[in-house]
Amino acid sequence: MTTLPERVTITEVGPRDGLQNEDCYVETPQKIELIARLNKAGFSRIEAGSFVSPKAIPQMRDAADVFAAMPRREGVTYVALVPNVVGARNALAAHADELATVVSASETHNKRNINRSVEESLREVEGVAALASDAGIPWAGYISTAFGCPYEGDIAEEQVVKLCTRLRGLGAAAVALGDTIGAGNPRQVANLVRAVQDALPDTPLRLHAHDTRGTGLANVFAALQEGVDSFDASVGGMGGCPYAPGAAGNVATEDVVYMLEEMGIATGVDLPALVEVARWAEEIVGRQLPGRVKDAGIMPAADAE
Amino acid sequence: MTTLPERVTITEVGPRDGLQNEDCYVETPQKIELIARLNKAGFSRIEAGSFVSPKAIPQMRDAADVFAAMPRREGVTYVALVPNVVGARNALAAHADELATVVSASETHNKRNINRSVEESLREVEGVAALASDAGIPWAGYISTAFGCPYEGDIAEEQVVKLCTRLRGLGAAAVALGDTIGAGNPRQVANLVRAVQDALPDTPLRLHAHDTRGTGLANVFAALQEGVDSFDASVGGMGGCPYAPGAAGNVATEDVVYMLEEMGIATGVDLPALVEVARWAEEIVGRQLPGRVKDAGIMPAADAE
Repeated sequence: MTTLPERVTITEVGPRDGLQNEDCYVETPQKIELIARLNKAGFSRIEAGSFVSPKAIPQMRDAADVFAAMPRREGVTYVALVPNVVGARNALAAHADELATVVSASETHNKRNINRSVEESLREVEGVAALASDAGIPWAGYISTAFGCPYEGDIAEEQVVKLCTRLRGLGAAAVALGDTIGAGNPRQVANLVRAVQDALPDTPLRLHAHDTRGTGLANVFAALQEGVDSFDASVGGMGGCPYAPGAAGNVATEDVVYMLEEMGIATGVDLPALVEVARWAEEIVGRQLPGRVKDAGIMPAADAE
Repeated sequence: MTTLPERVTITEVGPRDGLQNEDCYVETPQKIELIARLNKAGFSRIEAGSFVSPKAIPQMRDAADVFAAMPRREGVTYVALVPNVVGARNALAAHADELATVVSASETHNKRNINRSVEESLREVEGVAALASDAGIPWAGYISTAFGCPYEGDIAEEQVVKLCTRLRGLGAAAVALGDTIGAGNPRQVANLVRAVQDALPDTPLRLHAHDTRGTGLANVFAALQEGVDSFDASVGGMGGCPYAPGAAGNVATEDVVYMLEEMGIATGVDLPALVEVARWAEEIVGRQLPGRVKDAGIMPAADAE
């Protein structure tokens, strides 16, 4: 095996990508409580909400209230997802520490998702970048459907590399490869990461893996082997796949942390505390979540239950 | 990435390890129907039952009837799990094509599981080996708790290597590393596989992965990278973990096949047909099974549903 990173950074995206894709609306106080519990579990990065049209995504309509009232732990970066300049303004007004903005690798997906061409989206990103720059905070460029599109199917590697280059050119502090529909496989992840690294050697890369088809942790492992040390995950595996109702969404944070810590890779996250958050998350969304470790326990011999 | 095998062999263990660990008793005709459907999906190896004490494992009490009545497809190996010489005799009488026998890497687990020391179990394996040899059929040696034990916790690599050597010395055609409680991680899998390969270069190795903690496919990928080309899996992820009620058990076959085929690795299995079997399996066990691909579909754009 190649040398693996000794430590990785996890961005907990449950309060945003997780809750945004749950059918239910989670009330503001519970969102704030969720972030408080995640703070205690030791995350250094939490994606706390999305500043989007409340009509498009009603689950996130209280993002400003959440940002205003949530407890902020020192040293933690609270990220806001923003689809456009209006969202970026609102996120900055809410004192987000970092912005995340999304463009799809698939022209069809971008068009159907936000009714813009990829080129139009990139112009919007330019505006977001300018605002972030003025505010003196970093922003990350997310590439959705980087490993497959619900409309176009396979996505050409060159297409993703080209988008990475554009985003980096606009000033993205990091580029995140999003497996929006969980169609990626480990060989593909390794190849795409290498292609991006070859084209843009100094770009901090992040993997945003979904576990829709069970390959989430295998994809994390593949990226790790290529030196990727930054991963998104959602506590309990909250969220889902809008293109496959009932299917799993984001990879479950506690499963990722379990695997990494067992491999001797430090995450900074308190796994037993996180497992408790995952179990509590099932209560607030009112359904069994797909994460595995919360059901199995960390290790049977050591588990109290 | 290292060179990966171009094709792998999957042993479908749902009719045995899957059904054995379901709470319900699946009636004989349905077991036979399950095997018929698996035949059609193209498996070359099916673990069709276990010849054990009906008191110990009532779910398998009809193994002889299943073997007598199940349709046998040409070229398919129908494996029987046997815990001892009595089981081996019954399996041979039922015309099993191959035997599988299990010893635990953990002394405590072996004792609590079958009330024998590992040494006593190995003497029993010797008897099984003699019967298989007389009958002119191969047998595989399974090492359970190879990646962790519910009682002892971590298992020393040397302990597993020693057992592999003993089993191979007794004539095992293959050695299977069993992650009985799903506690393995990809680094550990790679290291253990390499240790066994170093000690026993020509031993056909198999990985029996469980997905109890979400690492199942990552572990398959890790083993693949070390050249392992034989894997156990259970359709739909049938089964469970006797040490963690409600937790996932064997890795779901359709998820493994999905990942491998997407990576360009041939399995010989018809994935769409297998997904249908997985959905049907949920009906016969009366619960939602943990496999992911059956819920998500193979690829949204191409999926008919």
